[in-house]
Amino acid sequence: MTYTVQIKVMPLKELLDPQGKAVKSGLENLGINSVEDVRIGKNITLQVDAENPDQAKRIAEDASKKLLANPVMEYFEINVN
Amino acid sequence: MTYTVQIKVMPLKELLDPQGKAVKSGLENLGINSVEDVRIGKNITLQVDAENPDQAKRIAEDASKKLLANPVMEYFEINVN
Repeated sequence: MTYTVQIKVMPLKELLDPQGKAVKSGLENLGINSVEDVRIGKNITLQVDAENPDQAKRIAEDASKKLLANPVMEYFEINVN
Repeated sequence: MTYTVQIKVMPLKELLDPQGKAVKSGLENLGINSVEDVRIGKNITLQVDAENPDQAKRIAEDASKKLLANPVMEYFEINVN
């Protein structure tokens, strides 16, 4: 069966996010001043062929650790639908 | 009050996603063959100062339309926590 797996990869909370800071400035230049903080990461949607949701999650974890997320700078969260 | 708003910006379903295709090849090279499709977008987390969740959502929609998403190539989904 095919499962849709969402992986959210975000910069670690301890680190600065220069891309987010740039977007915050951009929003202020557009007159949107009520945004206090912006953090930008990736959202990766996988279609995984697996026997059950647990197996799909394990495959996505494996993919995240080996390729999709850089543990020095990022953390990831996995959701199986 | 400050609300945490998650914005998911993904490439439109009708369009090819070359970055996703590249990641799929990368996963195959690592021996992960059960991933059938990969699509890659952005995940943006905003801290929005607003009076209620509806107002926070409206501000995030405004920001998405004006700056965060390109409607020619991307769609966006907003979640207020």
